[in-house]
Amino acid sequence: MQLYDLELSGNCYKIRLFSALLSIPMEKVTVDLRKGEHRQADFLALNPLGQIPVLVDSEVVLRDSQAILVYLARLYGGEDWLPSEAGAMARVVQWLATAANEIAHGPAAARAHDLFGAALDVEQARAGARRIIGIMDRHLRDREWLELGRPTIADIACFPYVALAHEGHVFLTDYPNVVAWIARIKALPGFVNMPGL
Amino acid sequence: MQLYDLELSGNCYKIRLFSALLSIPMEKVTVDLRKGEHRQADFLALNPLGQIPVLVDSEVVLRDSQAILVYLARLYGGEDWLPSEAGAMARVVQWLATAANEIAHGPAAARAHDLFGAALDVEQARAGARRIIGIMDRHLRDREWLELGRPTIADIACFPYVALAHEGHVFLTDYPNVVAWIARIKALPGFVNMPGL
Repeated sequence: MQLYDLELSGNCYKIRLFSALLSIPMEKVTVDLRKGEHRQADFLALNPLGQIPVLVDSEVVLRDSQAILVYLARLYGGEDWLPSEAGAMARVVQWLATAANEIAHGPAAARAHDLFGAALDVEQARAGARRIIGIMDRHLRDREWLELGRPTIADIACFPYVALAHEGHVFLTDYPNVVAWIARIKALPGFVNMPGL
Repeated sequence: MQLYDLELSGNCYKIRLFSALLSIPMEKVTVDLRKGEHRQADFLALNPLGQIPVLVDSEVVLRDSQAILVYLARLYGGEDWLPSEAGAMARVVQWLATAANEIAHGPAAARAHDLFGAALDVEQARAGARRIIGIMDRHLRDREWLELGRPTIADIACFPYVALAHEGHVFLTDYPNVVAWIARIKALPGFVNMPGL
């Protein structure tokens, strides 16, 4: 299994973290965005959106970190990380959508601006970040994990860019339940880190 | 089953369309955004993000149109609309992420600006819309459906805001494969329309 990867990408880190937690061997292929490797024809043939990560598992080629989490959870995670029952699966999937939408355009966008100079409205991104992190903090007031009372790919999908929010100058001091949730994820057996965490 | 709904919302329409295709009875509860009903405490108790649609099925309460599609597909769609095999499921899910990210912030955002006066960078939204619709057009060059050679919730999730793109002044004349795909969706047995389509 090959992961097209970049160390500083939180979306790639989701896959590195989840494959470490499940002890899934993963060959990493670095895609250097600064050199524009994601705009070259051989990479665009794997993912026309020109984004990392991409997972290649013989004939299965998957773009999008959330879809890759679903693939690995269904292949290697049994019923633990993404259950097959409709209600439980949908509860997890609503957080995958939050990761792809509010978190991507909130804390992840603010970090992309501050760290990599991405051209975007950083104040709007920071306001969005505070809004979604505040909602997560209230949600976690009486919960240890986002759904189902146990770690699922909902937590893995939402964790990186929330835990890296300070790199976009959004600070977690007002969100104690989110801070405690981050500490619980960091205490999972097999946890691996990334720069900035 | 109750759907908190608004007729002009493409995200709500995804659920109306899918439940019509699968003949799932659905009681609709209109949430009037102009009256701020999505900001009232009783609605925020269902969805703290203050967004429609929300689905309530006795004790299951789901926000996010993609998660609701997953729920209905797993409950009523057998293996057809969202198969349980890891690779097939993940292929479908990558388009749910595209719907939640590139389509939401592309054609859906441009429409929200032009139709409802949403405060956002409409030129950036239109550029994003053309980019993702162009990628879909190339993807559909040799395919009838987005994945698996048959209609899945990938098509249902991506369809509304692409088919409504003209309401954000993004026109589909340069995307013949997308236009043909829209016609195929409109020809599905049980298809229902929405204003603007």
